[in-house]
Amino acid sequence: MQSDAAHIQLERLNQEEWAKQESTADEKLAKVRAKHGKRPNIIYILADDIGWADVGCYGGGKVRGAPTPHLNQMAAEGMKFLTFYAQPSCTPSRVGIMTGRIPVRTGLNEVLWPGSKQGLHPEEVTIATLLSEVGYKTAFHGKWHLGDKEEFRPPNHGFDEGYYTLYNAAPWAFGDKRMDAFAWPESEEFAKKYPVEGIIEFKPGEKPREVEELSAERIRTYDEDLANKTIDFIKRHAAGDEPFFVYHAASKIDYWGAHPDWEGKSPGGSIFSDQMIEHDHNVGQILQAVRDLGIEENTLVVWMSDNGPMYGVGARATTYHWFRGGKGDVLEGGVRVPAIAWWPGMIEPGQDPMDIFSITDWFTTAARLGEAKDNIPDDRVTDGVDQTSLLIHGEGHSRRDYIFLYGGAELGAVRKRQYKSHAGEMHGGLPTNEVYDVVTDPGEKFVDNVRHFGLSVPFQDLVREHMTLIENFPHRVLEDTPGAGHIHGD
Amino acid sequence: MQSDAAHIQLERLNQEEWAKQESTADEKLAKVRAKHGKRPNIIYILADDIGWADVGCYGGGKVRGAPTPHLNQMAAEGMKFLTFYAQPSCTPSRVGIMTGRIPVRTGLNEVLWPGSKQGLHPEEVTIATLLSEVGYKTAFHGKWHLGDKEEFRPPNHGFDEGYYTLYNAAPWAFGDKRMDAFAWPESEEFAKKYPVEGIIEFKPGEKPREVEELSAERIRTYDEDLANKTIDFIKRHAAGDEPFFVYHAASKIDYWGAHPDWEGKSPGGSIFSDQMIEHDHNVGQILQAVRDLGIEENTLVVWMSDNGPMYGVGARATTYHWFRGGKGDVLEGGVRVPAIAWWPGMIEPGQDPMDIFSITDWFTTAARLGEAKDNIPDDRVTDGVDQTSLLIHGEGHSRRDYIFLYGGAELGAVRKRQYKSHAGEMHGGLPTNEVYDVVTDPGEKFVDNVRHFGLSVPFQDLVREHMTLIENFPHRVLEDTPGAGHIHGD
Repeated sequence: MQSDAAHIQLERLNQEEWAKQESTADEKLAKVRAKHGKRPNIIYILADDIGWADVGCYGGGKVRGAPTPHLNQMAAEGMKFLTFYAQPSCTPSRVGIMTGRIPVRTGLNEVLWPGSKQGLHPEEVTIATLLSEVGYKTAFHGKWHLGDKEEFRPPNHGFDEGYYTLYNAAPWAFGDKRMDAFAWPESEEFAKKYPVEGIIEFKPGEKPREVEELSAERIRTYDEDLANKTIDFIKRHAAGDEPFFVYHAASKIDYWGAHPDWEGKSPGGSIFSDQMIEHDHNVGQILQAVRDLGIEENTLVVWMSDNGPMYGVGARATTYHWFRGGKGDVLEGGVRVPAIAWWPGMIEPGQDPMDIFSITDWFTTAARLGEAKDNIPDDRVTDGVDQTSLLIHGEGHSRRDYIFLYGGAELGAVRKRQYKSHAGEMHGGLPTNEVYDVVTDPGEKFVDNVRHFGLSVPFQDLVREHMTLIENFPHRVLEDTPGAGHIHGD
Repeated sequence: MQSDAAHIQLERLNQEEWAKQESTADEKLAKVRAKHGKRPNIIYILADDIGWADVGCYGGGKVRGAPTPHLNQMAAEGMKFLTFYAQPSCTPSRVGIMTGRIPVRTGLNEVLWPGSKQGLHPEEVTIATLLSEVGYKTAFHGKWHLGDKEEFRPPNHGFDEGYYTLYNAAPWAFGDKRMDAFAWPESEEFAKKYPVEGIIEFKPGEKPREVEELSAERIRTYDEDLANKTIDFIKRHAAGDEPFFVYHAASKIDYWGAHPDWEGKSPGGSIFSDQMIEHDHNVGQILQAVRDLGIEENTLVVWMSDNGPMYGVGARATTYHWFRGGKGDVLEGGVRVPAIAWWPGMIEPGQDPMDIFSITDWFTTAARLGEAKDNIPDDRVTDGVDQTSLLIHGEGHSRRDYIFLYGGAELGAVRKRQYKSHAGEMHGGLPTNEVYDVVTDPGEKFVDNVRHFGLSVPFQDLVREHMTLIENFPHRVLEDTPGAGHIHGD
């Protein structure tokens, strides 16, 4: 595996200590493997557009009229990450999860829209492919959002089976007019040109088929199906000889609204709070299925959001928090999201590490847990680092103290330890930067350039080496898309 | 006791149900009294300018470089209030705590400054006086902030003993120059005219005396003394025949900084985060003393902040949160503060009610616990309601669904259930209001006047009856002050 330069340097500095931790971790994993006769199961639950202050154990939830008892309990029994970075929007975060790579390396920098010619290139190696190759049973349920073409879809990226949609919140989909007035005046025409497919299902060895059309009403009940599909998959494989990997990408929170059964059921009674409690319930159902099957000691469950809350469309339908910025930004509000890992017996309960964790790290961590790490290709940079040690040894054991945050194709911000430097506009021919101490000031309110001279001083080597590596391993170049980027400009 | 009109109405509506709750509560209290041979001890710990997102269990703490394990534990073992309203600033909140009355009724609308002729009038009846009259041993430790004159001070308001300061953050005190440049250019002159007294001590039956001068350095170690004084008082009275009441008003968070022992000890390493972990430690020490003495079943400990965080002076020294506004505002950021009640055996652990609670409510609640409620005078309005039922029966049992929030002498906002109406500027001769649904929108970002027509519709009766009662029980008129209000205008 080819790591980014910053990680290689950390590896050198911490060689001995990390080696010790690796052997403890290996021992612990070997014990669980021996006891259960297989490698651990892995469940990813990805939430859509849920921000920091939406979740009770992050200070929101009930306070906003949307109690989240199941996520709170998951955190109390597991590890709640206080510094978890996703990517700024849906597609990039999904690229990060699938490939362990900063999305820009794969050519997918931004949110995809129906009709796009871009997608997750067949030569990208996903975690599903890696785990599948070493015997895992794999399933994908939910919003894919990684491209329309056949070769970009789940069956071509390592999944044995699936029940999914390509998109579920494209504003012009389903002929819905609500978004027309203020956002996409071309939407009706666009909808005809690029029809959105409905729910697609595929089973091992069978051809995928569209099993149901979507509508603004139907999509509201979609998450219930997803939960049932995931629970069914878990049940079918709990006792099998091989471990399983399921990637569950929920549609909540979106602007279509909660399942009718959940409408008006939250104390807040808003379109947002109803969806939040519905999503929390579904997470609880999945965890309960794992418990009921008695496989919790052998199953890592990861819950995370894909990006910060979405202000741009339907401010009331989604939410906000005490960070600055939201979905689309590399400010903390856009990328620092709630995330919880749960694995009774392996992860000590009640932990809340401040260690930096990147959404790309799950790729490498899952590969290690599945004993597929050696299969990660080394002809490209993999940014995700193996965080098994943090899961097992607790706070202070993250394998990164840095992160590179891209907004689209450009490096927007770099964090090293507690400092985060944002690239600014050119000013009189000179670059500008703003540095924040995001430990004392997670809201990025007080520019701290007096102590830290932007990208030019403490971040200098970090960025230079990162950029040099890109020269050696250039970004993938994809075919151009007629999608979102061109809606307004074309 | 003369309640406010809104409460009288609720009492009528809920007569039967409340009567039932009262008898359960009486039974529970009688049992504890029988077991311990006395009424419960009461400890108030008041923090200074600590906001919602400063405390770990409210979503801050560790995330801001200031872990608060003791407050988190206190909340986990007790009741964390999610809708606790203090007053917008120091003096008004202290008036509310002492008298159970909206400060404007007592004539004290704003922060007092050294040299003020105003103060807590001798005819105001404090909770210390009430409890003292029925046999409680009473002590005050910390920042008084209720007036300079003899008759305004703790010995004249029901405290047997004390170790205290009149102020501890007056910017011109101690000849400190840091605040001069941007806030009070007259401060040096002012300091000479109105010298700030140092630490004052008084013991039962003895005359109060200034035991030590203050300085910008000395005040940093003051909270350690306060914790020791409080713990010493608790130890002396734990086994006594009479219960005790101690009001501990910490000086943290202020802009003088942490105790040198705590300087640089927080992960954040800021002047704020160091003080926060110092304060958290001190709270932990007091709780531990209660546990060590085995009196926790018979001791209610209340921790609360006096107002929202202070942005105006030294933004970095204090903090911020996801509410709008800060100290001085009737926006949630100014008045909605963290507060925790702890009473093992009487308060069920792990509760986090959304019920509305006013800082004035502790007055009436403590009077009831001390069996001194009948001594509350009925020649004036007491706003605090008895919240024993909420403490004992849990969420949903608050005795208020409304609150009147004054910014100075004017009614600034009224909350009824989830809606809060802010009085706005006059506009073309017409009053304006902004209504927020502070359950789904605690940040007061989305004006909700479409559903609720400001003060004129759902709040109409509430405000009219409140105002009518003021006509019958007029506000106390105090002598004018040469203090803060005049620094800039005089």
